[in-house]
Amino acid sequence: MTAEGFAFAVEARDGAARAGRLTTPHGVVETPCFMPVGTKATVKAVEPRELRELGAQVVLANTYHLFFRPGTEIVAAHGGLHGFMQWDGPILTDSGGFQVFSLEGTRVVRDDGVEFSSVYDGSRHVFTPELAMRTQEELGADIIMAFDQCAPGTLPRPELEASVERTTRWAAACKEAHSRPDQLLTGIVQGGVDEALRRRSAAEIMGVGFDAYAIGGLSVGERGDKMLATVELMDDLLPHDRLRYFMGIGDPRGIVDVIARGVDVFDCVLPTRLARTGSAFSSAGRLNLRNARFAADLGPLDPACDCYTCRTFTRSYLRHLVTQKEMLAAQLLSLHNLRVLIRLTKDARMAIRAGLFADFAIDVKERFAAGG
Amino acid sequence: MTAEGFAFAVEARDGAARAGRLTTPHGVVETPCFMPVGTKATVKAVEPRELRELGAQVVLANTYHLFFRPGTEIVAAHGGLHGFMQWDGPILTDSGGFQVFSLEGTRVVRDDGVEFSSVYDGSRHVFTPELAMRTQEELGADIIMAFDQCAPGTLPRPELEASVERTTRWAAACKEAHSRPDQLLTGIVQGGVDEALRRRSAAEIMGVGFDAYAIGGLSVGERGDKMLATVELMDDLLPHDRLRYFMGIGDPRGIVDVIARGVDVFDCVLPTRLARTGSAFSSAGRLNLRNARFAADLGPLDPACDCYTCRTFTRSYLRHLVTQKEMLAAQLLSLHNLRVLIRLTKDARMAIRAGLFADFAIDVKERFAAGG
Repeated sequence: MTAEGFAFAVEARDGAARAGRLTTPHGVVETPCFMPVGTKATVKAVEPRELRELGAQVVLANTYHLFFRPGTEIVAAHGGLHGFMQWDGPILTDSGGFQVFSLEGTRVVRDDGVEFSSVYDGSRHVFTPELAMRTQEELGADIIMAFDQCAPGTLPRPELEASVERTTRWAAACKEAHSRPDQLLTGIVQGGVDEALRRRSAAEIMGVGFDAYAIGGLSVGERGDKMLATVELMDDLLPHDRLRYFMGIGDPRGIVDVIARGVDVFDCVLPTRLARTGSAFSSAGRLNLRNARFAADLGPLDPACDCYTCRTFTRSYLRHLVTQKEMLAAQLLSLHNLRVLIRLTKDARMAIRAGLFADFAIDVKERFAAGG
Repeated sequence: MTAEGFAFAVEARDGAARAGRLTTPHGVVETPCFMPVGTKATVKAVEPRELRELGAQVVLANTYHLFFRPGTEIVAAHGGLHGFMQWDGPILTDSGGFQVFSLEGTRVVRDDGVEFSSVYDGSRHVFTPELAMRTQEELGADIIMAFDQCAPGTLPRPELEASVERTTRWAAACKEAHSRPDQLLTGIVQGGVDEALRRRSAAEIMGVGFDAYAIGGLSVGERGDKMLATVELMDDLLPHDRLRYFMGIGDPRGIVDVIARGVDVFDCVLPTRLARTGSAFSSAGRLNLRNARFAADLGPLDPACDCYTCRTFTRSYLRHLVTQKEMLAAQLLSLHNLRVLIRLTKDARMAIRAGLFADFAIDVKERFAAGG
């Protein structure tokens, strides 16, 4: 790798699934790996020491939000995000592109970037590849992302094509602008679920050349089979010795699907968001703790789980916390939901190394099938 | 003591201040001791393992709330509150009296108890001494409270006198009704800030006879000097070999004031409530973390504190969490505010044992004077 202090190696393969090892200046990430999302430099309701306890290896934070609050200057004064949020393991920041493009109504896509109104105070701003790089350099994450145009596969083809062109142009501008040698800059492939556009985007982004590649523009409303076909295509196209990041997947079955198609790392707000609504992953399907059937249930949340919540409390108590809107509910369910995904990917890694991933995938899909 | 598995001894005195040791079936409580409040069987935003880490010795829970949600039957099915909330140390439940009497408008005070509407669903209920005992027996706390009429000192004298009479009658009914030998039943003295009524109430409650006594009806709107004069009077009147509990005080200076007047244990929602509004105790006075002056403050919340929050994060980061309404703010500030009070009482105990309490009290009052 060209980035200083980084290395990536695929250690084992089982079909298209890969077990890899990413070395960063802040520690090693064994893949496949689920990355908890700490949008505003905090994984909601979870202390950093608890993330460590859960086995989290790398945490994601959002450039867009941190740019506005508290502002990059304050984060930089802490020596970057590691000092600010007190997570001493690897950190990944997104480019801000996803949030900016979500601001339909206020945004204007220009050739040099995107003009939009801040959700914080309505002020007008322009995000450009150069600003995305400068901001991410100041935030100081280990892994950073090129500024792209996240275009859903449901977009009309001419617009999708324009987004692919822009993403390539901006990727080159990002590579040009990026100067910190201790950060792994990741290129993002777009193109929705259009095979020709995906091929073109992959070729162009690989032409710019990055140490790691992300599959963007999926999990944003397209059909599930088209999404998976696109991930398979990416597995064919992307270099096999580089890290691959699927942006935004967090349900156990979906995770297994993308691991099976050669993805190494992925992130999602789902586990902590579900927790705040009183829902939990479990080996008996997804559980809604508001359900009255848990009122007198003295069993653990998930007998198969080894987290603090499952080792300690009954479903009855957790339901009480949820229905009474106690903060401890979100805390305990966040710990659990994150642990489920972290252990799932840890187990996936073992299965890949043992050549047993196909059986493992079937088992996970069965276990997490019920309750949707 | 008549309760099985309990003992209380005053080990040292310094003026009226006492260092004591309460033995319970769930462990020892060294006094003076601040008891965190877990209203609905959870100290808001704090995990029970963190309470242990903070040095919490005994946790309070509210009979009124638990009676309605989740209901005593469900708590009893867990073997009581210890199993339900997974706090294996001593637990104290209040009698429900304070909440019931707070329901002005819907409540009707009767000779046998209080009729009121539930805040949960508006249904009509009557709390009686007998029901308060049965409920607290089912909840299974170590220390339980007689059902009293909490009357503020601002009440007209005839009403205050009637409340003292009722409190005595109900105290006798509670003692008669209580049957669990492994619970310490505590009598409550009322009488507002009227010396004659306090004397009468103390004499009558001591006439009924309890292993421990609580000073009720203070910290509910009366003048500070009258409150303290009443605590001093209680120190003269109550037996010197029994545990004394002051209900509802949680600011550092107030705590020192009641310890100085012979109080052993006290509770308050203040530390966790302040935390949820973004405020912190500190040796530089109370801090409002919303204040812009903390935006770039890289120092710890309180350099004199040894809690996880102060050991780990900057004021700047904590302010970011508070202003962004992140749940982690309430979590980290709750840990800190509780730790401040727990350490304060631990230090008070050492000072009493060393005969240095007067100096200690002056020091605390100076340190916590600023910022109010």
